[in-house]
Amino acid sequence: MNDPAFSSRQLADSQIAIVGLGLMGASLAGALRGQSRQTVGVARREETVEIALERGLIDWGTTNLASGVQSADAVVLATPVRTILRLLDEIGPLLPAECLIMDLGSTKAQIVSKMAGLPAHVQPLGGHPMCGKEVAGIAAADPAIYRGCTFVLTPLARTSEAALGLADALVRSSGAHPLIMEPDRHDQVVATISHLPYAIACALVATAQTMASLEPAVWDVAASGYLDTSRLAASDVTMMLDILLTNRDAVLKSLDAYADQLRDLTALIREKNTVGLRAALDGIRECRADM
Amino acid sequence: MNDPAFSSRQLADSQIAIVGLGLMGASLAGALRGQSRQTVGVARREETVEIALERGLIDWGTTNLASGVQSADAVVLATPVRTILRLLDEIGPLLPAECLIMDLGSTKAQIVSKMAGLPAHVQPLGGHPMCGKEVAGIAAADPAIYRGCTFVLTPLARTSEAALGLADALVRSSGAHPLIMEPDRHDQVVATISHLPYAIACALVATAQTMASLEPAVWDVAASGYLDTSRLAASDVTMMLDILLTNRDAVLKSLDAYADQLRDLTALIREKNTVGLRAALDGIRECRADM
Repeated sequence: MNDPAFSSRQLADSQIAIVGLGLMGASLAGALRGQSRQTVGVARREETVEIALERGLIDWGTTNLASGVQSADAVVLATPVRTILRLLDEIGPLLPAECLIMDLGSTKAQIVSKMAGLPAHVQPLGGHPMCGKEVAGIAAADPAIYRGCTFVLTPLARTSEAALGLADALVRSSGAHPLIMEPDRHDQVVATISHLPYAIACALVATAQTMASLEPAVWDVAASGYLDTSRLAASDVTMMLDILLTNRDAVLKSLDAYADQLRDLTALIREKNTVGLRAALDGIRECRADM
Repeated sequence: MNDPAFSSRQLADSQIAIVGLGLMGASLAGALRGQSRQTVGVARREETVEIALERGLIDWGTTNLASGVQSADAVVLATPVRTILRLLDEIGPLLPAECLIMDLGSTKAQIVSKMAGLPAHVQPLGGHPMCGKEVAGIAAADPAIYRGCTFVLTPLARTSEAALGLADALVRSSGAHPLIMEPDRHDQVVATISHLPYAIACALVATAQTMASLEPAVWDVAASGYLDTSRLAASDVTMMLDILLTNRDAVLKSLDAYADQLRDLTALIREKNTVGLRAALDGIRECRADM
């Protein structure tokens, strides 16, 4: 990677275009504004651009992709994964030479594979910040959400040192910590630590909902334990659907591993195996309490 | 139930003994102190009594059960469920006439069934406040944790109106809302909304732990989604073990219902059933976002 001080100066001289001004894109725009020469926002709807301008998250904005990215030094695709895949089909010819093109998509293998087919004059790089909220849209945007989070970067064989250096400076300027990973490794890790928790939360809500149809008092008795464990079930469905379908194999593998663990715990309870259950729960508690 | 104003005056004239000064007992003592004539704490260890006195959570305390409860108008058992069951074997003869004897145990059928065998001179009543923290012990005590929570009361056929009125005033004075339920109904409801989330969280931690043994980056990538969904796995193991074993049938029923829901969601992902998956996730999201 390039000298960090050089990359930082390079960022200060750069025009950054963020495509998609939802929670993640608008928050990143706000975090970077003032640290780059210019922060440009591209949104589907004029109203979103206006909100971003009013809230001071971007220097200028447009609903036209071509004009939004034509002078960019770095373009960040901040849409759900399947929209990123569609954007990668059309964006290549619109980008200037040596432009860094990265994304914030929650799965990486399919995106990076498609990035490999971009025209030779651009510099692709996969990205995934490990932060978010269960509330979608620019109304929930908060430039502080990147602070302290891990931001995975998945470089391609063709990604130049200079491009990676610029991305590194961009990530650090948002307050996040870059972590370089292989796309497949990333996808398996997030399947377990991020996509599985979503599926778990959804199955819990579905179970409570079924019980509530017979016993409405379920909701009166629901406390912080239920609320925390089920929180992710309120996530944006389009975003999560794209994740589950583009990371399907890894998600299914994690779901199978999880079903095995749940079956083992259930068996210990069924068998009234107090000693075995205590040993299992003690080990689990220690692991979780350490975090 | 008695006139609430009368019950409130009755509480102000009462001596309340809390047996067990862990998170829940010490917090309740602190919430009630000053609202009852005297708040007495009974703990196993002298050191715990001293901390409760230093922190102003009790008026006086003892490690001797008999002397702690001998002048009480109400006794609250605030220990793990299986300790409550053992205490109910010995406490009856120690209590004065018409003393309210209630508990904070997380399961109710076994406790209420044992309470039915208490001597006729006492007034038993099951209780379960729907609040808590994953940190156990007096160090984590906070009188505010009862504020706004639902506090289930499970009266017995023999529980007098006056005893129920005193318990109602006690619950309201802690800041909680009383909700009267049958013990079996309570146990099935909390199996789904409280004990199941614990088991789910534990299986998630076990899954992540297994993956981390192959791929340590799992912990670098863990974000708020994992932390929230797994939070309950850090709960006190002795307390949870008692819950899982004394509410075993209801917990197993909830675990089976949950495994079915998880299997259904997994099948939709496996079959790439985008339409079915979106419909299921939309319904789940709506249910969770409504809370």
